[in-house]
Amino acid sequence: MRGFAERADVEEVERFLVERVAALDAEPAPVAACAGRVLAEDVVASVDVPGFARASMDGYAVRGEDTFGASAYEPALLRIVGEALPGRPASVPVEPGCAARVMTGAPLPAGADAVAMAEIATERGDRVALADAVSPGKNVGAVGEDIRRGDRVLVRGRRLRPQDAGLLASIGAAQPLCVRRPRVRLVVTGDELLPAGSVPLPPRIVDSNSVMLRALVARDGGELLPFEILPDRPERIREALVAPADAILVSGGSSVGTEDHAPRLVAELGHLDFHGVSMRPSSPAGVGRVGGAWVFLLPGNPVSCLCAYEFFAGPTIRALGGRTRAWPHRSVRLPLARKIASAVGRTDYVRVAIEAGAAVPIATSGASILSSTVRAAGFVIVPRALEGMPEGAEVEVRLYDEDPAA
Amino acid sequence: MRGFAERADVEEVERFLVERVAALDAEPAPVAACAGRVLAEDVVASVDVPGFARASMDGYAVRGEDTFGASAYEPALLRIVGEALPGRPASVPVEPGCAARVMTGAPLPAGADAVAMAEIATERGDRVALADAVSPGKNVGAVGEDIRRGDRVLVRGRRLRPQDAGLLASIGAAQPLCVRRPRVRLVVTGDELLPAGSVPLPPRIVDSNSVMLRALVARDGGELLPFEILPDRPERIREALVAPADAILVSGGSSVGTEDHAPRLVAELGHLDFHGVSMRPSSPAGVGRVGGAWVFLLPGNPVSCLCAYEFFAGPTIRALGGRTRAWPHRSVRLPLARKIASAVGRTDYVRVAIEAGAAVPIATSGASILSSTVRAAGFVIVPRALEGMPEGAEVEVRLYDEDPAA
Repeated sequence: MRGFAERADVEEVERFLVERVAALDAEPAPVAACAGRVLAEDVVASVDVPGFARASMDGYAVRGEDTFGASAYEPALLRIVGEALPGRPASVPVEPGCAARVMTGAPLPAGADAVAMAEIATERGDRVALADAVSPGKNVGAVGEDIRRGDRVLVRGRRLRPQDAGLLASIGAAQPLCVRRPRVRLVVTGDELLPAGSVPLPPRIVDSNSVMLRALVARDGGELLPFEILPDRPERIREALVAPADAILVSGGSSVGTEDHAPRLVAELGHLDFHGVSMRPSSPAGVGRVGGAWVFLLPGNPVSCLCAYEFFAGPTIRALGGRTRAWPHRSVRLPLARKIASAVGRTDYVRVAIEAGAAVPIATSGASILSSTVRAAGFVIVPRALEGMPEGAEVEVRLYDEDPAA
Repeated sequence: MRGFAERADVEEVERFLVERVAALDAEPAPVAACAGRVLAEDVVASVDVPGFARASMDGYAVRGEDTFGASAYEPALLRIVGEALPGRPASVPVEPGCAARVMTGAPLPAGADAVAMAEIATERGDRVALADAVSPGKNVGAVGEDIRRGDRVLVRGRRLRPQDAGLLASIGAAQPLCVRRPRVRLVVTGDELLPAGSVPLPPRIVDSNSVMLRALVARDGGELLPFEILPDRPERIREALVAPADAILVSGGSSVGTEDHAPRLVAELGHLDFHGVSMRPSSPAGVGRVGGAWVFLLPGNPVSCLCAYEFFAGPTIRALGGRTRAWPHRSVRLPLARKIASAVGRTDYVRVAIEAGAAVPIATSGASILSSTVRAAGFVIVPRALEGMPEGAEVEVRLYDEDPAA
């Protein structure tokens, strides 16, 4: 058994990852499921939208000049010569003195140049009376009004919004090229672990880290590979490290104890770039590479696991998927209700509650206190250069709740 | 064909929904997949966590008093009598003058009351030399330190965070009761519609609304039911309205044109509570009920569809699933670069770009301009009481990008 000879700074590990982690290759994504994905190409429209002049209101397609001067007292009377529905054009053109019933989205009949909305119209037999004038072009969507053929409608790197996906569908993009979602393998080891859903039976405990990590990976756009809890046996861990993945999260067995096989295996099979980081909690965290996969050694203690995930694994998974590395939490600036003690040279991840408009550090005695992250509203990061933060200092609290309104 | 006789105010529709929409019933959710769900019960721990005293560092389990006075010059020398690993307790107790190797998470051997961390220890044959004193209790997680049996760990209504799900697993909660996810049916009608992934062929257009709505429903926690585009035939729409669902989103065919069957069918089969709302865009929007389902009539124009969804359907789907009704967008306060014209009595949904720290309204001529919501950074709501907003006014811009860092 040995201690950590030397710990890296958080910033050093972050810089290492920023320099080396790039977005994965592109793959076609079905347009119906591309929202939330990151576009890997510029998209240029190959069609006009609309592709034809169309009614943008329900009403009557008319020649605008036929309605000039119309009013409630002296309505314009036009003969109804047909009907245009979406996908079903009128069979005859609208000649002077005529109108055609149209529904929103219908192709504007030939001859017509405007649509009189239903609200100003009254049918009288085969005629329609319009109580107001309708200027040419009114209530008509012109060809290319929304998108013109040749327009660059979306650019590479865009995280597709719901409406972006809709727009891609509307221009006939069937399979936009998106950054591949990182495949993430959880390697949870521990002879003491019972699967989630079991009742803890000392000295065995229930695997909670995979439950938490699964949700974090989903948040960050990763695709979770099939998962099982592994025994503390090097050959099983070795198999899990060499199987194809883009990122591997090793939870437990990652420190320097006799049963901590993962660090040695990562060093043997690839590179163990960092092991031991000047941070609290999660100082036994590590980062390495095996084959094409980034490997994150996450301490088994749940809060350490969460903290190491957020600092190193989360940004990497987001960057692999083409997203921003930045932490996804919303943040608020609040005064500290009590000082936070830290140490120069060490980065601290401090859970805080929010009470009476101030951030209250949650005192805990250990990194295993998962309930602290449940009671907390969020966390404060004390950077390496500070030996703490005084009472009253304004700090950035990153909030755990994703939902701004939660 | 008739116009809208009378339009409801946005607030009236919102109030109606707030008064009538409640969270759905509860269902057990597998703990491994409960993150993001809303808890429907208070959860009380039936076990202590940890359930046994355990090492919180790798090192040596000792009797603290045996180490008092130890230093690098005069280390405490203790005899190694065993080893404790997670899930594998030591076979013999730690007697005075003795120590046992322990790994993080291992049960503390009987007799020991502290753990000397590996960093201060050196093994010499069958002994270990400790270069520092270790006070009793040091590096030991006490029974119930994280959670005590009987603690109320999470309360009803909580939207479960990743770490909440982990905590539930750790106390042996296999199937926490969560609010059922609303089942949402998309009823997209239109003879002119080609399925997403097709190339538009005038006068036919590609269904883009279902693509957008699918992503919005996922964002709001709904579970999408199987979907197909329906022809404008009343009997097919009727079938879709009476099939079981918690919410039905009708896109297209919802206005007052001859082919707009949905409003009449909703009125026939249940209640058409509102049809026509004083808002721009999406004034033909409607709200009704058929059987146990809330029905939202969303105009076929893509921006109107988005707008009506955000005002009425989104908050309802979130509330059915136990989430907050509040809009999920982050918002920023910015000055208006140009005035926005509106009308008293009408609520406007105005897309804005952000340029040079100001909100720039995007001028469009119609509700069908989906590209406006793609170019926009977000939107501003002009409330009913205002006839517009002057240049320079500070407005709340709700941002389209979910990701704070995007």
